Amino acid sequence: MKPPSGQGVRLACFLLSLAAPCLPSPLWKDRDSLMQEEKAHQTGGNLVLSRQEQQLSTKLVNLKKKEVEAAITAGQFPPSMHFFRAKSLIDQSTVFSILKRMPKGAVLHLHDLALLSVGWLVFNASYLPDCYICFTPTGSVRFRFSRPRPPPAPCSPWLLLDTYRGQLRDVAEFDRGLLRNLTLVTDAPELAYPSQTFIWKRFEEIFLIASGLICYAPVFKAYFYQGLLELYEDNIQYVEIRAILPAVYELDGTKHDKSWSVAAYREVTRQFVKEHPDFVGAKVIFAAHRMLNVSQIKEAIITAMALRSRFPDTLAGFDLVGDEDKGHSLWDLKDALTIPYSMGVNLPYFFHAGETGEHEDSRLVTACRDWQGTSVDNNVLDALLLNTSRIGHGLALIKHPVAKNLSLKRDIPVEVCPISNQVLMLVADLRSHPAADLMAEGHPIVISPDDPPIFGAKGVSYDFYEVFMAIGGMNADLRTLKQLALNSIKYSAMLPDEKAKAKELWQKKWDQFVADLSDSFLREL
Amino acid sequence: MKPPSGQGVRLACFLLSLAAPCLPSPLWKDRDSLMQEEKAHQTGGNLVLSRQEQQLSTKLVNLKKKEVEAAITAGQFPPSMHFFRAKSLIDQSTVFSILKRMPKGAVLHLHDLALLSVGWLVFNASYLPDCYICFTPTGSVRFRFSRPRPPPAPCSPWLLLDTYRGQLRDVAEFDRGLLRNLTLVTDAPELAYPSQTFIWKRFEEIFLIASGLICYAPVFKAYFYQGLLELYEDNIQYVEIRAILPAVYELDGTKHDKSWSVAAYREVTRQFVKEHPDFVGAKVIFAAHRMLNVSQIKEAIITAMALRSRFPDTLAGFDLVGDEDKGHSLWDLKDALTIPYSMGVNLPYFFHAGETGEHEDSRLVTACRDWQGTSVDNNVLDALLLNTSRIGHGLALIKHPVAKNLSLKRDIPVEVCPISNQVLMLVADLRSHPAADLMAEGHPIVISPDDPPIFGAKGVSYDFYEVFMAIGGMNADLRTLKQLALNSIKYSAMLPDEKAKAKELWQKKWDQFVADLSDSFLREL
Repeated sequence: MKPPSGQGVRLACFLLSLAAPCLPSPLWKDRDSLMQEEKAHQTGGNLVLSRQEQQLSTKLVNLKKKEVEAAITAGQFPPSMHFFRAKSLIDQSTVFSILKRMPKGAVLHLHDLALLSVGWLVFNASYLPDCYICFTPTGSVRFRFSRPRPPPAPCSPWLLLDTYRGQLRDVAEFDRGLLRNLTLVTDAPELAYPSQTFIWKRFEEIFLIASGLICYAPVFKAYFYQGLLELYEDNIQYVEIRAILPAVYELDGTKHDKSWSVAAYREVTRQFVKEHPDFVGAKVIFAAHRMLNVSQIKEAIITAMALRSRFPDTLAGFDLVGDEDKGHSLWDLKDALTIPYSMGVNLPYFFHAGETGEHEDSRLVTACRDWQGTSVDNNVLDALLLNTSRIGHGLALIKHPVAKNLSLKRDIPVEVCPISNQVLMLVADLRSHPAADLMAEGHPIVISPDDPPIFGAKGVSYDFYEVFMAIGGMNADLRTLKQLALNSIKYSAMLPDEKAKAKELWQKKWDQFVADLSDSFLREL
Repeated sequence: MKPPSGQGVRLACFLLSLAAPCLPSPLWKDRDSLMQEEKAHQTGGNLVLSRQEQQLSTKLVNLKKKEVEAAITAGQFPPSMHFFRAKSLIDQSTVFSILKRMPKGAVLHLHDLALLSVGWLVFNASYLPDCYICFTPTGSVRFRFSRPRPPPAPCSPWLLLDTYRGQLRDVAEFDRGLLRNLTLVTDAPELAYPSQTFIWKRFEEIFLIASGLICYAPVFKAYFYQGLLELYEDNIQYVEIRAILPAVYELDGTKHDKSWSVAAYREVTRQFVKEHPDFVGAKVIFAAHRMLNVSQIKEAIITAMALRSRFPDTLAGFDLVGDEDKGHSLWDLKDALTIPYSMGVNLPYFFHAGETGEHEDSRLVTACRDWQGTSVDNNVLDALLLNTSRIGHGLALIKHPVAKNLSLKRDIPVEVCPISNQVLMLVADLRSHPAADLMAEGHPIVISPDDPPIFGAKGVSYDFYEVFMAIGGMNADLRTLKQLALNSIKYSAMLPDEKAKAKELWQKKWDQFVADLSDSFLREL
């Protein structure tokens, strides 16, 4: 055809300005189906909702829209802000109040010493008789229950807390100080935590402080019970906890072994379920610290196999915990981690892998280790090769397409812990959390809180808020939420009949939630 | 099999401690091949290097390793830092000096008014006779060449710069002020630019200031010539510039039309190539502002078709520029953008799409527009449906798996502009630039500088540094760099015979680069 001349162009322009709006161009013929395909890909994209659920979903998305618009006006969008500053805003959100009420199924990534709001440790545990405190040279504290006085520690002399509190002018201020010691929460996290290395040190210090209280046998059981209660009250039906199974002690200094701890978890769980029949239960994943060397990990693996054979209903499997960029890679520990395989024993793995991000020294260190051939950067792939049942965090997965194809093919979910990742400086703005890509392509995921009390959170609702408002994109709706709850049951370590029971229980709660919420919306909330 | 008892465990433990290191477990049998597969996926992963190139690659990666290790020690890794602070560190890097020497092929994403270091505008252009300046109420400036005095503008009275400079005590300080006005560079970007909206305003203001100088006909040609020279000196062999084709004016106020500008680009390019036979050429992509309405864009499209028919060798196609989150989406403008298709005219598109990120109000606005059905969030998909030849920026692509599959299938590259994205607040730490995922899975990309002088950069070498040191991951090597150079030629708008010529010219330079660099390494740099 003749290309348009200057004259022709002016004519065409004139004609086009007169023309009625164009008919849809054949260029767009696939647009709707591609956009539908994209939606179908997303987490929950293939779920079919009931009519009532659909109506609810529309209302929920409208509510979200309103809250985002208000956030624009106010210039403060909680998922883009640090959680320590965002929390009070989230607490005022109606979407959040709905997410709290939603039955969320299982929570699969949660640590033994970080189940329960720290207030309980300070106002209950530390007020028990025979509680001693000492002050470390770096300004931290240690606790110990004992009768008589505990043996000296690398610390100031032990002070009986009861006596010490009696001498203080302002006990409330002292207790607030203890609370501060037991969380990472602060007004200016950017100033308080200049680097990832630094915040990890503080993070591990908190566990040291808390363990003195939690590992006292009576507190150990009560803490777990109260922890289950707090999760139950957040509408969670089942939990799996990573447990380091530290030596639990008695007042006279006697120390229990790991079997005792697993038995205690089992006993408390049974008691809790008896008193809360709409809670399904709890399992334990034994977690060794990744700073241990191969022979120590070998011992831990042997212990895990023994515990699993003794507590098949309670001990779900094995994991490694601690700062991934500093500890050993799975490859470093391969001689230990392949023991169950070579012995023909089934020890399920639930590896933390790819909990690594963009900040400061983390990937630099990774980088150097990479060259030395001991890269933690391969942890995601190695976790899959070791037949991990789930991947903890897995932030690095999207940078490893071959590993990602493998996890997709094998249906291995990623345990996504948004608030933990933000507080531990792996991602700043949660809209750009790598799980956004996983959700967009429907990679299996579950949502978990990791260590809620340390971050000033509670249960898993805050994490669901971040996912619903930001990570899942603006298309996230009730299907997304329902799928996440269903995933949490599907990818748990429960046995088939346990899963069926959990699913049934959850479904009942879900139906009730949908009915109640529809009523609320009818009354315009 | 019998599960290990407590006794059995202790025995197993003992035996294992005696055992020689285990044979590789069958679990790992695929590890090497999967890791190879992952490497093969990466950008350049399938290139076969000559023996000399291989040796060079190893040396280059070792050098990179050293620089990263030094960065760890110093606690300052340039790609994690804001470019304004990183630049002086990059300037000292040996890797960077090598990247400067490397023949990089084509630069495909670069804007007409931001080709050349601003020093030339201040110290050459603004010192030409008949240059007037005025000061705007917001503390900015405007320039105008004129004889007689230019007509009044919404500005202070026009002052003849020559006279004005004559009255100043400190002309150097005044000129430094002009330089500052013409870039975004500042010591504390986080304080200077509190939001994306804010920095985009400053960014567009810079173009307004510069246009007064650049659009004066003699400066227009000289600026383009000097711009080509600066790019040529950065070892670039060919460029495609997004040109808004503003009205170029003469001293008496006469204004030229767009044809004049395209003819000027063609003339200067021919002159430059004549004087630099190892430079291939330049093409122009006519770019309209996305704030224009449909009927204005219709006119622009008609103009583009006419220009392309008149300058088939020079005018490569059409694009839309300006803040994507504020301007019209491609879908808004569909009635204009489908005109060439319905007229049967071939007008290649090179759309900016998905230049959207995590910061502040950007995606919030997107979010709201999404609900109103006019989403810029679909720009990436719509660009592909409109048969775009390349995607400018495409940061949002990884969140749209269906669109990404389409671009992969159609072999449509993303123009990645790392420094631009960082300065314009779309990504903070370049290790987590979304292109890292694209490179990991071998999605076609080219590296471009966007507006180097505005960011205080020069040519494309700084962007290559960010890609080689961070975005490409620690595995990025000489193959990565070679592939990126080859991509830049392959995905250019050059005709087949032009490409062949460019490739041949580049290959000669590449071989020389490899030979020279191997010599340098022999002499230990």
